[in-house]
Amino acid sequence: MSALKSWIDVPKGGGSQEFSIGGGFAELPEIQGHLHVFGEETLNSFAALGRRVTNAVRLYLSDILTADTKRAGLLKDNAALRKKAVLPQSAVILHLPMRIGDYTDFYAGLRHAFTVGTILRGADKALQPNYKHMPVAYHGRASSIVVSGTPIRRPRGQIPPPGSTTPNFSPCKRLDIELEIAALLGKPSEMGTPISVADASEYVFGYVLMNDWSARDIQAWEYVPLGPFTAKNFGTTISPWVVLADALEPHQTPALPNENTPLPYLVEERKDNVLDIHLEVELKTASGSKTNLTQTSSSNLLWSFPQMIAHHTITGCNLSVGDLLGSGTISGTEKGTQGSLLEATEGGKKPLQLPDSSETRTFLEDGDAVTITGRSGDDESGYVGFGECSGVILPALS
Amino acid sequence: MSALKSWIDVPKGGGSQEFSIGGGFAELPEIQGHLHVFGEETLNSFAALGRRVTNAVRLYLSDILTADTKRAGLLKDNAALRKKAVLPQSAVILHLPMRIGDYTDFYAGLRHAFTVGTILRGADKALQPNYKHMPVAYHGRASSIVVSGTPIRRPRGQIPPPGSTTPNFSPCKRLDIELEIAALLGKPSEMGTPISVADASEYVFGYVLMNDWSARDIQAWEYVPLGPFTAKNFGTTISPWVVLADALEPHQTPALPNENTPLPYLVEERKDNVLDIHLEVELKTASGSKTNLTQTSSSNLLWSFPQMIAHHTITGCNLSVGDLLGSGTISGTEKGTQGSLLEATEGGKKPLQLPDSSETRTFLEDGDAVTITGRSGDDESGYVGFGECSGVILPALS
Repeated sequence: MSALKSWIDVPKGGGSQEFSIGGGFAELPEIQGHLHVFGEETLNSFAALGRRVTNAVRLYLSDILTADTKRAGLLKDNAALRKKAVLPQSAVILHLPMRIGDYTDFYAGLRHAFTVGTILRGADKALQPNYKHMPVAYHGRASSIVVSGTPIRRPRGQIPPPGSTTPNFSPCKRLDIELEIAALLGKPSEMGTPISVADASEYVFGYVLMNDWSARDIQAWEYVPLGPFTAKNFGTTISPWVVLADALEPHQTPALPNENTPLPYLVEERKDNVLDIHLEVELKTASGSKTNLTQTSSSNLLWSFPQMIAHHTITGCNLSVGDLLGSGTISGTEKGTQGSLLEATEGGKKPLQLPDSSETRTFLEDGDAVTITGRSGDDESGYVGFGECSGVILPALS
Repeated sequence: MSALKSWIDVPKGGGSQEFSIGGGFAELPEIQGHLHVFGEETLNSFAALGRRVTNAVRLYLSDILTADTKRAGLLKDNAALRKKAVLPQSAVILHLPMRIGDYTDFYAGLRHAFTVGTILRGADKALQPNYKHMPVAYHGRASSIVVSGTPIRRPRGQIPPPGSTTPNFSPCKRLDIELEIAALLGKPSEMGTPISVADASEYVFGYVLMNDWSARDIQAWEYVPLGPFTAKNFGTTISPWVVLADALEPHQTPALPNENTPLPYLVEERKDNVLDIHLEVELKTASGSKTNLTQTSSSNLLWSFPQMIAHHTITGCNLSVGDLLGSGTISGTEKGTQGSLLEATEGGKKPLQLPDSSETRTFLEDGDAVTITGRSGDDESGYVGFGECSGVILPALS
């Protein structure tokens, strides 16, 4: 919802909301009979009400919180209800918003895929032949998805010395981030029945920011032939609140151009098919120095979420409420727009000089805190602000 | 439990149990206070009681059902209780035994990995350099795990013609099976804390048979660089009842030899570290002809389940009650011992002549039913019988 023109104190510029809301739905017929969903531990039941209902709730809340609407008085003029319904964010602990079923991580960030492929295989073989025909993806680990603020322990694992095929056991020395956005689903599908790309957006409840922490040295050794495993499954962080899909409807833009014509099951009528979210990554070191590592846009994707959903289900895989679909790492092409340190340091070869300190960074050090923020919109139309997605690196077990 | 010397009618030779049991635990102190677990829809809460309790229940039931034990009279001499507690299998519908959290599929079947690697990359590069240093695995799709008897629809997807990198959209023409066993977990672990290989068996509730249906033509195109995705996620079948880990304790044997010394976190004291289950695969075509495709043993593994668990958690991944860990495809080296048609037909080049008909098979045809059976033990010591793991192929959507 817009953070502007609101009668309660919400900072301009988005990226943060200082309140949480419950109760007071007397004038919203769509939610009657379903009020129990607000008493549950996760948003799964709310999401399962479907986009029509969840959007009605969103608009109703927006109405109440915006100055000069006919419903502005509902809370504004009712101190008792306001005290009950509006809590300062500092007084609440934000948990994982949904009980996550399966987690799938796509690889739709073309520039990331190209740069990493170039580092691993050279520029001429950077992208595999399938890349521009399908939204490539792998199944991820759902149990280790955590909410923003959860510390991440540096993993230990198998790492061969350069040029060797005999691994040592060692703490990860190339611990990295992956800047992503992710969809949380609100509608289940039947096994054996693909979802058409035209219907796919109905399955999306909303979006979060995501950091797919990655142990690059472990990954390089383990990932053939079946893909990443222990290099990823030690932790994945998401932002705590879900921005509903309908709130982002005005903030879409065309995906990156694809010279291949995809197969018909992936062809969308809608041209502005990917989200346009301004994304930033901040690094704060143990010494307190802060560096803005990345400024980019979620429009740096070759495939949209509806295309990902159509592809995910094309052979018959069923989706569930609470499934999480990651976009893949989002990077631009310029310096300062890349969503991983692997890219920003050219495969670890060129350390970054942190501007406000004498420190450099190739990969993450213990005590480093990484925070992803995101927002859509502008000062005129107002902002849609995501919760921040943050985590600090704890030292490896000894 | 042993199917021999039982006072109720259980067929010799294992592989089938004709009853299901509930109630009557008055003489079992371990289960008092937990009886609600038997009223739940899945075995998750029962499994979470831990191996000491679940094994006590197993032994108690075995005692009651075995002739000449002091508890044999409990049911034998109580017709009313017997009627309530013992149901014919034909009167019950067997569901998925657990609510599955995350599903991980390992690749520990050395002979399968070698043969498939040879088909894809040649014998000298068949196994990747990591293969004998770690139990290679990928995260699978939990939502499409189904119980034995659930039909599987032939998937459609992206398949390029031979030699081309432009895919067509087509029903899968190389639909295959993968013969596996799988562990279901009964104990959760904490994120950030690896499970030692010595403790790992405490996390296993029990085992099932598994068929990891695979679309080979879709897989070959999609699997680089992140592993199998839509070629696997359309369905995975498991047998309906869980054979408790303790029931298989007497049926273990050493894993296949590994000329590499694994890193210490993978070294087990126990030498008989893998399960010794006799496994068979039967194909029944739409015409009714039956062929025994495979006879092999689950001992054809390079890594044990405790090693898989130690590796799965080594970077800090947490496990949950209800997680499913597949072994990878189990194959011997001889003709008739291979766990996939890809191997049995040498990559699809040598069709199998079905002995009782004029039919041949390279990969699965519509109407084919595949049934995996498994048992441990022998006529003298008695058998531990798995439920069958079966599915029939439905035609692709048109």
